[in-house]
Amino acid sequence: MHYSPDKVSLADCFARFSDHWNPRIIAELNGQHVKAVKFKGQFVWHHHEVEDEMFLVINGSFTMEFRSHSVTLNAGDMIVVPHGVEHRPVADEEVEVLLFEPASTINTGSAGGERTRTDLERL
Amino acid sequence: MHYSPDKVSLADCFARFSDHWNPRIIAELNGQHVKAVKFKGQFVWHHHEVEDEMFLVINGSFTMEFRSHSVTLNAGDMIVVPHGVEHRPVADEEVEVLLFEPASTINTGSAGGERTRTDLERL
Repeated sequence: MHYSPDKVSLADCFARFSDHWNPRIIAELNGQHVKAVKFKGQFVWHHHEVEDEMFLVINGSFTMEFRSHSVTLNAGDMIVVPHGVEHRPVADEEVEVLLFEPASTINTGSAGGERTRTDLERL
Repeated sequence: MHYSPDKVSLADCFARFSDHWNPRIIAELNGQHVKAVKFKGQFVWHHHEVEDEMFLVINGSFTMEFRSHSVTLNAGDMIVVPHGVEHRPVADEEVEVLLFEPASTINTGSAGGERTRTDLERL
């Protein structure tokens, strides 16, 4: 098979949008999506019934709050939030984050509400 | 569920090994593995029958060769190599790479041989 994949620049992806809590799909493989997202402020408490989620900080920092404690992540740090675990990302300043999760994952998970994003843009 | 995940520092992971072409598992989610690996030199031509692979450069640069062309990736660049596509990573200097791929993925894919690594270390 001679199909030739091309590369994706994370910097280019993050330069193409400025809104917060609105993930863009930047790659797809094995039924999983890789998404670029900017966080600023406080998200909603939620969990995902079946999907584990991975967050990798590209620029900036944010705190992942859990019911029992919080974890602050800086650039180059990642965290896996297993399905069923309640969490809430909080960013004092804007942070650029890469998400790795099943294509079925909805940003607000079990919580739903006005901050839910579906039909995500593909960069 | 009050289980509290902890973070993983990519810098810490890469500081814990120095050999090349020997991926370490640093996270696991949704049947996928996240691996840290250092490349230096030229790998073997191979493809994966069923697994798509993603490569994200953390430090350094390398070239992904395909049969029809090559793509040079620098820090912050990623590429998805779909299953069935022959490829060969080549790094003039040491490069630190993050891999996202199904847990079933073997580094040499269809090629096998002495550079095959199984029973990967978990960091």
